[in-house]
Amino acid sequence: MTGALSIVGLGPGGHAHRTQAAQDAVRDAQIVLGYHGYLAACADLTGPHQSLMPSEIGAEQQRAEDAVRAAADGARVALVSSGDAGIYGMASLALSTAAALPPARRPSVRVVPGITAAVAAGALLGAPLARDFACLTLSDLLAPWDAVEARLRAVAAADLVLALYNPRSRGRPWQLRRTRDVLAEYRPDDTPVGLVTDAGRDGEQVELTTLAALDPDRAGMHTVVIVGAAGTSRLGDWLVTARSLSAPL
Amino acid sequence: MTGALSIVGLGPGGHAHRTQAAQDAVRDAQIVLGYHGYLAACADLTGPHQSLMPSEIGAEQQRAEDAVRAAADGARVALVSSGDAGIYGMASLALSTAAALPPARRPSVRVVPGITAAVAAGALLGAPLARDFACLTLSDLLAPWDAVEARLRAVAAADLVLALYNPRSRGRPWQLRRTRDVLAEYRPDDTPVGLVTDAGRDGEQVELTTLAALDPDRAGMHTVVIVGAAGTSRLGDWLVTARSLSAPL
Repeated sequence: MTGALSIVGLGPGGHAHRTQAAQDAVRDAQIVLGYHGYLAACADLTGPHQSLMPSEIGAEQQRAEDAVRAAADGARVALVSSGDAGIYGMASLALSTAAALPPARRPSVRVVPGITAAVAAGALLGAPLARDFACLTLSDLLAPWDAVEARLRAVAAADLVLALYNPRSRGRPWQLRRTRDVLAEYRPDDTPVGLVTDAGRDGEQVELTTLAALDPDRAGMHTVVIVGAAGTSRLGDWLVTARSLSAPL
Repeated sequence: MTGALSIVGLGPGGHAHRTQAAQDAVRDAQIVLGYHGYLAACADLTGPHQSLMPSEIGAEQQRAEDAVRAAADGARVALVSSGDAGIYGMASLALSTAAALPPARRPSVRVVPGITAAVAAGALLGAPLARDFACLTLSDLLAPWDAVEARLRAVAAADLVLALYNPRSRGRPWQLRRTRDVLAEYRPDDTPVGLVTDAGRDGEQVELTTLAALDPDRAGMHTVVIVGAAGTSRLGDWLVTARSLSAPL
């Protein structure tokens, strides 16, 4: 008999921004898999009666296969991600892996949504995502940079607010600087920008700046960068985008 | 002495997808304001020791002013929205209202994030938002339709997955049909489309179709429509977008 796989988004940081359904899915699982940092983030929900299978970052395909196989073999399995597992998370890989199994082996699968980084960062900054926005990743690990930049240009030209995931890491040091320079072709120097690092975790940082003053070195692996649009203003310590929209030029 | 305003996203539907922080903010408030349907959605968190101030849909400016005034007068106030209050919700209006007060009157304000409709719909559909997407509203109550359509065209051309909020209501019957026709200029007929209505509530409905077969009459006020991109496939009952991205043409 096949088991069940829950692909769980834990939200940012600790327990405050986790949902009830995410907590229940982790507590109820016989096997919990995930990057070891994410297993640590839900350690308050797990116990000695469960089998924990931590893995390293970069081992995504293996992790998806392990999770699907364990569920196909009959276990109740939780595969945990931070944020939302469907947004730059494990759900795409795990669902594709499950769908490739013969029907008789295929476990039941569900995705349990979580607070994704853009939403967590938006709340800490105020309401920058109040009308129309795009989430883009600056990672070129799974895409040629030209394709990433083409999307940036299209979204910049359309005046959407941008939430930039994976803006910088040790192995990708120049992408955010390039992004700033590309966006500066479309948006004024004083466009409000917010950087949120480690939302909901120890060391949480919220910084407000402008497009011209954006220092790429202030971003790291756990940063989301939000770039305002024409309707975005800085009101004191808040970034707020108006819900109304003017006619196009 | 000024009080404190929490602008709270309740997520979709009932308690399953609410966060701990959202629950705590509602329980801890002396005054809870919101559209009456949202107050009903958190009725399990409120009690006779609290003052509840339900209001009608469309009364957003008045509601924001009432919430900010109550907090400025010293109360602990929760202003509740479904989904995330920062995304097509009350946070933009409430923060703007608070920022307009003289500094001595200004209450402390925080935004408590919630699971927004696109994320809830994405989880029910599988993983359509796995790489780069835009949230757009089809409402032209606060924008001329030309501006909405210009954004649609830009995002369609950039091959982002689309999450369409407010696709249809009694007063806005034609916008989704027009959107389908616009998107068909950019994307193939067999582009996967998912409609999720009343996510997490009684009567929740999940429908899979294609861009050519999309029937606008299947959408209502509580529907989110997700339109796939080149990387989106239908895998059995799931919509899944690949995390990798090819070079642009």
